[in-house]
Amino acid sequence: MLARYLPILEWGRTYNTGVLTNDLVAAIIVTIMLIPQSLAYALLAGLPPVVGLYASILPLVAYAIFGTSRTLAVGPVAVVSLMTASAAGAVAAQGTAEYLEAAITLAALSGVMLAVLGLLRAGFLANLLSHPVVSGFITASGLLIATSQLKHILGVKAGGDNWPDMLGALAGAIGDTNPWTLAVGIPATLFLFWVRTGAKPALQRLGLAPRVADIVAKAGPVVAVMLTILGAIAFDLEAKGVALVGEVPQGLPPFAMPSTDLALIGQLWVPALLISIIGFVESVSVARTLAAKRRQRISPDQELVGLGAANIASAFSGGYPVTGGFARSAVNFDAGAETPAAGAFTAVGIALASLFLTPLLYSLPVATLAATIIVAVLSLVDMKTPGQLWRYSKADFAAHAATIAITLLAGVELGVIAGVAVGLLLYLWAASRPHAAIVGRVPETEHFRNIARHKVFTAPHVLSLRIDESLTYLNAHWLEEFVMEQVAEHPELRHVILMCSAVNAIDASGLESLEAINHRLSDGGIKLHLSEVKGPVMDRLERTHFVEELGGQVWLSQARAFAHALADDGRDRSEPGDMARGLI
Amino acid sequence: MLARYLPILEWGRTYNTGVLTNDLVAAIIVTIMLIPQSLAYALLAGLPPVVGLYASILPLVAYAIFGTSRTLAVGPVAVVSLMTASAAGAVAAQGTAEYLEAAITLAALSGVMLAVLGLLRAGFLANLLSHPVVSGFITASGLLIATSQLKHILGVKAGGDNWPDMLGALAGAIGDTNPWTLAVGIPATLFLFWVRTGAKPALQRLGLAPRVADIVAKAGPVVAVMLTILGAIAFDLEAKGVALVGEVPQGLPPFAMPSTDLALIGQLWVPALLISIIGFVESVSVARTLAAKRRQRISPDQELVGLGAANIASAFSGGYPVTGGFARSAVNFDAGAETPAAGAFTAVGIALASLFLTPLLYSLPVATLAATIIVAVLSLVDMKTPGQLWRYSKADFAAHAATIAITLLAGVELGVIAGVAVGLLLYLWAASRPHAAIVGRVPETEHFRNIARHKVFTAPHVLSLRIDESLTYLNAHWLEEFVMEQVAEHPELRHVILMCSAVNAIDASGLESLEAINHRLSDGGIKLHLSEVKGPVMDRLERTHFVEELGGQVWLSQARAFAHALADDGRDRSEPGDMARGLI
Repeated sequence: MLARYLPILEWGRTYNTGVLTNDLVAAIIVTIMLIPQSLAYALLAGLPPVVGLYASILPLVAYAIFGTSRTLAVGPVAVVSLMTASAAGAVAAQGTAEYLEAAITLAALSGVMLAVLGLLRAGFLANLLSHPVVSGFITASGLLIATSQLKHILGVKAGGDNWPDMLGALAGAIGDTNPWTLAVGIPATLFLFWVRTGAKPALQRLGLAPRVADIVAKAGPVVAVMLTILGAIAFDLEAKGVALVGEVPQGLPPFAMPSTDLALIGQLWVPALLISIIGFVESVSVARTLAAKRRQRISPDQELVGLGAANIASAFSGGYPVTGGFARSAVNFDAGAETPAAGAFTAVGIALASLFLTPLLYSLPVATLAATIIVAVLSLVDMKTPGQLWRYSKADFAAHAATIAITLLAGVELGVIAGVAVGLLLYLWAASRPHAAIVGRVPETEHFRNIARHKVFTAPHVLSLRIDESLTYLNAHWLEEFVMEQVAEHPELRHVILMCSAVNAIDASGLESLEAINHRLSDGGIKLHLSEVKGPVMDRLERTHFVEELGGQVWLSQARAFAHALADDGRDRSEPGDMARGLI
Repeated sequence: MLARYLPILEWGRTYNTGVLTNDLVAAIIVTIMLIPQSLAYALLAGLPPVVGLYASILPLVAYAIFGTSRTLAVGPVAVVSLMTASAAGAVAAQGTAEYLEAAITLAALSGVMLAVLGLLRAGFLANLLSHPVVSGFITASGLLIATSQLKHILGVKAGGDNWPDMLGALAGAIGDTNPWTLAVGIPATLFLFWVRTGAKPALQRLGLAPRVADIVAKAGPVVAVMLTILGAIAFDLEAKGVALVGEVPQGLPPFAMPSTDLALIGQLWVPALLISIIGFVESVSVARTLAAKRRQRISPDQELVGLGAANIASAFSGGYPVTGGFARSAVNFDAGAETPAAGAFTAVGIALASLFLTPLLYSLPVATLAATIIVAVLSLVDMKTPGQLWRYSKADFAAHAATIAITLLAGVELGVIAGVAVGLLLYLWAASRPHAAIVGRVPETEHFRNIARHKVFTAPHVLSLRIDESLTYLNAHWLEEFVMEQVAEHPELRHVILMCSAVNAIDASGLESLEAINHRLSDGGIKLHLSEVKGPVMDRLERTHFVEELGGQVWLSQARAFAHALADDGRDRSEPGDMARGLI
């Protein structure tokens, strides 16, 4: 029981020096990757760079204790950073103490929400975000984030939460471009693109082993950071108007308190909820993918608790909302991490960096960090999915396209909400107009198939309808109208058989419409039968008077129901083959 | 085409004197019933009584032109009146010009919303209100409405939109009870109860024909109105502090303009939407029931247009939101109305009443109108449904109970919203955790049934899973975990067959999880097969690479899939009967 809420008790028992070595190696690699990324994402969130480091220390320790994924790496991520900037920007100006307080409060609110949802075992709520919605949101966020960083590459001031605002502001400010900033930003961007795509093969051609080449390539961003720091010092870029990171406070994370101002909480709870949901969905899908590769399992409900603890830890140590990131988790996994202890060791690495390395960051050009972000997020933009969705399902494509369009045009918060709403409406619309077919018997078998697709045997006084959906309140009216319409078209009818093999549930509204149908058919001298009713559905129907009042009977198989109805015609039972020719 | 949007063109063509006579008789009976009811519901809405008459003239004409039900009677109804009082009361005090303007604006907003939803063919949205939610809402509204009228019976002042407030206010004011008001209110209430239940049999015993007795009983409220007017004059009740209706403006409805103040519209649009939805659902269910009795049909989308037109007409003639009412429509139907012209004739009757009868209403005690309301709405309270729902479906019961509780405790608006939300969440929760079963072959048949419920034949290297739900984003993760869990429990597996007879759709997220399952099973040397995939589902799958990449095959029947997988064991095919004994 305790181990369910504290997964560390489980993996901690079998910890040994072999595992320790693997976890330490992974932690060193992830630390090297995480330092520039943490600084960059804090910049994206509109926060001082050091806040990114703070958000990469205690949250990792908290997740190591409460999380169920062995290899998930928690910390600041691009999409959540953008959402933080959007939410905190709505209540305070960037650079103010209020803005930082808002970011910390977002982390606290999000942490509490996640933990409570986890304790309520409400992980299923994340299912409301379909794959097309999530992938549309990530693509659009990638484009928004890359666009938001162009100002740092150009060295101009420009704002905006959505494409129209951002592009307008950039167009207005482009005349102020600082050529020195551009001279840092463009080479840094090109170098990082090369590191991501061409560096590993090039290093292998130089004779490095693939694994070593991979690790060296992962250190590319650190190389870019070092080179541009040296360049900034050598050319005195600060005097030439190039934005540098500047003074970064040295030391461990401070103890911070989220705001308890109810007015502020009132403004932040909706964005905090969206951040929680998006963060959870992103994190769980990464954790699931990695766990599957090693045949491990994660518990979505406990993941909520783990991420909740991480965010609460972030809030109280001056950080901002965090979640499990895809890139860093993949690196952690590839580098051989075996347990969440690797995350705790990474936290020690980042803590050491914030104790000793921060003075070195004074001369780091902001354009380098912007280049890191741009290169990282453009890999989030997925150009293949829209075409695949269009071919497979127009409804899924619509949800995907609506999410992309609204996220780009109206910002991340409305984008998520619109995506969930469109997905849900399309789902409910489909559920309210289910597929149903008139079926007949495939000659010389006991199978029944759609008369529109197969050569089958039917009889004019028997109508067999297969309902391809559960009968719920969403389609109760549809069922009534569908059956009565069919009956109106078949005046010789004496038996209607509803084939329920695909009816997985009948709720109270569905039951009521069945009762109404039975009543109306009985008035017209037609018997209503049900066939192939599933066990759980039948169990429930037996608790009502419906079965007693049914004009016909409930049959275990459609074949028997059909045979009975045929026999009622007064004619002898014929071989299906004989009758089929005239009747199909 | 034009006839679709103007149903009057259809029934108008065949209109003749026989139909005219029937419509006129029905109109007279409904007019007599509607006069006291209109006054009473305006009182319930917190409006001057004459507004109830205005809302019963032009809206009926508009519905006669645009509506599709032959017998629906439109006008003020109890639940919508209560919702109007709640919405208008939130922006202005009762009795002020602003309050009346808010009510008129509600009618206009609701009319435009209904008409637009109708033109968008969005009638399916009404499906979001399940039967348990609607019946819970109506029961709770009936209790709220009856409670809200007690102050008029006691002759005290008391307010409140929900039970705690209402009961608190009544308890505080009960000391001010006016005995003369009570002396009118209690006998009026008892008389109206008797009219509703005992009057018809008593009149029949006096020798009246059943049909005549019925019509005379319907006039009971008019008798109560006349008797209490006479009593008020005879005993000079005005001087004794009994509230009377007082001066009622004489004449036809004025031309009124809804407010175009955006701030007011901003406050009213949510309640207007709720009024529209509740009004639509109530009206359509009445129209459906009556149409079914005469084998007629209504069009829900065109009903939206008809009700929209009625509400717009109400707004521009100084009325408030209207919809099709149950009691008056039933009376109209029973009285023999054949076309919507009966509604137009009723409008003429009410117009005559507002021209000539209003001076007579001066001395009508408000307590009489309150008694009319109380007796009418208590028939809305449904005591049987909760028990039936509890036995049949705990989820439906929960939605019903939540709707009743929240409507009583927090008012009508939150009640509807909570009902829809609870219903939807429970639905989504169920859809995210579908039923699935391991199935085996029923010996000597081609049928496959749940191994937990039937004696069936299985083999250790073949796992047949029947998925009892469409594969959608709501359950995509569940499917992956369910299949992998089953696979983990059956180490000898070489074939997994997903029996898809109950899978009515596979969306993009479901496809992705099938691909993931196929991939993971292939890694483990297990072949994934699908069987009994429905036509529309297969059509879609064929547009993807899934079928090519599938480790196993897609089979028309589960029996063939199972036979193939059995054969792959290397053993000869045995008779099911032989093997079954050892394996069940």
